[in-house]
Amino acid sequence: MTRLAASRALTGEAAGVPARRISAADDGALMSTQEFYDWWADRHRSGRFMVERIPFSRLDDWNFEPDTGNLAHASGRFFTIEGLQVRDGGRETWSQPIINQPEIGILGIVVKEFDGVLHCLMQAKMEPGNINTLQLSPTVQATRSNYTQVHRGAGTRYLECFVGPARGQVLVDVLQSEQGAWFWRKRNRNMVVLMTGDVPVHEDYRWLTLAQIRELTQVDNLVNMDARTVLSCLPVELPEDEDASTGDPFRDALIRSYRYRPDDVGAGEVLSWFTEAKTRCDWTARLVPLTKVGGWERTDDEITDGEGRHFRIIAAEVEAGTREVKRWTQPLLFPRGEGRALFVARPIDGVLHLLVQARPEFGLMDMVEMAPTVQLLPGAGVTEIEDLLLRDALADATMRYDAVLSEEGGRFYQALTRYQIAEVGEDFSLDVPANFRWMTVRQLTDLLRHGHYLNIEARSLLACMHSLY
Amino acid sequence: MTRLAASRALTGEAAGVPARRISAADDGALMSTQEFYDWWADRHRSGRFMVERIPFSRLDDWNFEPDTGNLAHASGRFFTIEGLQVRDGGRETWSQPIINQPEIGILGIVVKEFDGVLHCLMQAKMEPGNINTLQLSPTVQATRSNYTQVHRGAGTRYLECFVGPARGQVLVDVLQSEQGAWFWRKRNRNMVVLMTGDVPVHEDYRWLTLAQIRELTQVDNLVNMDARTVLSCLPVELPEDEDASTGDPFRDALIRSYRYRPDDVGAGEVLSWFTEAKTRCDWTARLVPLTKVGGWERTDDEITDGEGRHFRIIAAEVEAGTREVKRWTQPLLFPRGEGRALFVARPIDGVLHLLVQARPEFGLMDMVEMAPTVQLLPGAGVTEIEDLLLRDALADATMRYDAVLSEEGGRFYQALTRYQIAEVGEDFSLDVPANFRWMTVRQLTDLLRHGHYLNIEARSLLACMHSLY
Repeated sequence: MTRLAASRALTGEAAGVPARRISAADDGALMSTQEFYDWWADRHRSGRFMVERIPFSRLDDWNFEPDTGNLAHASGRFFTIEGLQVRDGGRETWSQPIINQPEIGILGIVVKEFDGVLHCLMQAKMEPGNINTLQLSPTVQATRSNYTQVHRGAGTRYLECFVGPARGQVLVDVLQSEQGAWFWRKRNRNMVVLMTGDVPVHEDYRWLTLAQIRELTQVDNLVNMDARTVLSCLPVELPEDEDASTGDPFRDALIRSYRYRPDDVGAGEVLSWFTEAKTRCDWTARLVPLTKVGGWERTDDEITDGEGRHFRIIAAEVEAGTREVKRWTQPLLFPRGEGRALFVARPIDGVLHLLVQARPEFGLMDMVEMAPTVQLLPGAGVTEIEDLLLRDALADATMRYDAVLSEEGGRFYQALTRYQIAEVGEDFSLDVPANFRWMTVRQLTDLLRHGHYLNIEARSLLACMHSLY
Repeated sequence: MTRLAASRALTGEAAGVPARRISAADDGALMSTQEFYDWWADRHRSGRFMVERIPFSRLDDWNFEPDTGNLAHASGRFFTIEGLQVRDGGRETWSQPIINQPEIGILGIVVKEFDGVLHCLMQAKMEPGNINTLQLSPTVQATRSNYTQVHRGAGTRYLECFVGPARGQVLVDVLQSEQGAWFWRKRNRNMVVLMTGDVPVHEDYRWLTLAQIRELTQVDNLVNMDARTVLSCLPVELPEDEDASTGDPFRDALIRSYRYRPDDVGAGEVLSWFTEAKTRCDWTARLVPLTKVGGWERTDDEITDGEGRHFRIIAAEVEAGTREVKRWTQPLLFPRGEGRALFVARPIDGVLHLLVQARPEFGLMDMVEMAPTVQLLPGAGVTEIEDLLLRDALADATMRYDAVLSEEGGRFYQALTRYQIAEVGEDFSLDVPANFRWMTVRQLTDLLRHGHYLNIEARSLLACMHSLY
């Protein structure tokens, strides 16, 4: 496996970034990438953060309900840990604990032009589940409980840019799903707003250009999941010169992929393929009391499956000087091992196509969403890739993108996924199983105006794809 | 209230249709509208249909489950009657019985060109809940249980046009919701396929042009709900002469409405408005055992709310010579009184706009869909129209469409809705409450490529709108 795009782990101190990249990404930027890293290190030094695993008995205001065994907050807000029961062909099959968070939160990025260059107001945000404490986050990341202040903390900074009379011009505003394996039908409101007036910059925030952020997506565990999903929904600006060749066949094929939308005949072949994939599902999932979930047990400090193959539910105590609430306790979902999400990409008639999977996930609201070619839950090995041909092809693929990125640190404890974009040659068969489809980047980004199409892993990878552009 | 479009009740015999309409609609048609009515009367005479209300104890293979009180079929298939519980702001509020039918069925119309004119293969289909036994139905109307033959009946006729190797060119293929007040997250696959080869016509089927079917939507209780939703999803052919005036200002404004799509800036204002409406919802709904539904009681032959205000669940025995299964029993939902669905329409700068409501319904998968301006459940009076200005405006409106149409007769017993399109003048305020939005027909039909946008009542009304075109 050839690895072209080196990924760099970033700890508290600034990591080295190749000079070529600094100069390209810094064009027209308010601050250089080097200045960004200085600020980033400073944010690490100035924060006081502590996350400690605790037994469930030390959770404040969180209790296991007597009837159901569900883990819930006394206010009835935030989220609950409940059971999910799947029935397949009329019989009960899989069951598991699941996070139920019905409230719709806002993940929002404020953008503004400086000297004609679009900048995003990004936040250095601590989340209890982050493996490295701080990650680069959207301007606003607020649950409904946050912004209606159920937990009586300070108000959410910059929220007024997104709601109410002073809000900016809305560029993106769509409900998108989150992990279907761990969340029960969760969606968040992904927003981008363009501001024209003065926007004061708090010390935990900095203006970065899209090019800078895209470059930073190549760094391990830096751009957080919420930033990735919002950025994936922001339409990509295309170079003006339609037919210019960059001299790099991969990049040329990629640029064509951003433009190319096949003739839309009839129902739209992709939409029909997707509808068909949903109708193939003969399962239903529903919430059940956590006590009804078979094969899982609750100890003093975790809920775990008997075989130790899946995730655990744990409890943590958190202290964070920079957050609205200074100290709190909460449950977290703790996966075992690292997940994997990989798009196979190959040129078709000079246009890069991605091999998209129509993937059922029990927690998704509409059962199936479009997913990366390979999507493995943490703990699943490469042998779980069903298609032998696919497994062989990956051994010879050119890795165009390869980094380990974190999933949402507010609900998941150290949930890491290795994201990859693997280019295969024209000998890779175009004839794929019924649950796969070759699509251009443009076809995918067109669908991002709507919810229920691309799952969170596919959106993350699209945001990463932008760094190759 | 002026009533321009007279609606005509159709019983077993052919009803009179104005000659002007016959001649226009029959252009290029394989059979005249008069011949259609002759055939229709013949279908009535040749069928043997019987629907009888029975006590629950006489249901075959349907039982109230001991634990939950849910009414379910022994096979675990078809549908169940369960409970729905709403929590609002953390507290339990509304609860009711609800039909849970998670399987995705197919509602499909076969279309074919004869001498350059598109025809639809429509079916005279009996449903137990139909007030008049037969209604004009799609070519295929099959639950998954139907077409996988769980009930061991004959195969579904024409199903091969929609699935498998011999299927036609897919023009429409989208999952659309059904009544959010009565169904738990039900969707059906709405399909239109274009066939080119020979399609044998069974005696219960006839080829009708779109113009003929549109005219028939003006007849009370004739074009069934499933036909209406599928037809609403079929893109409308536009007249070739872009600027021709028909001499009728209403029709000119309507034609412009079929074309006009406002400039799509930013996120798309409509999509952002719709996302915002969902985030305003602070309620969640979930399935609960039917025994947990408060205020409803079960007698020998119905499940009813104590006050007799809402619907009842009843049981029926059905005999039908023309159906795959000749005799069966099943539960049905029986509303009290007639529902109402009305679009307010007004020209804005010469383009007809519809006043669309972002309407939460507890049974909808994604909480909110776009609905008619006024949507009243059966039994609700005009006094339930909240906006006083709206109520006054309706008194002066010109009724462009006004007919009583049936909801799905396979699950609902004599569920009738009065569908209306009410034109108001330019004195009707453009400034509307946050849950309303002025939209063109084109904006709505563009969204019909996707699910989760227009509810079943809005789609029905759009299909009726086509009859004014």
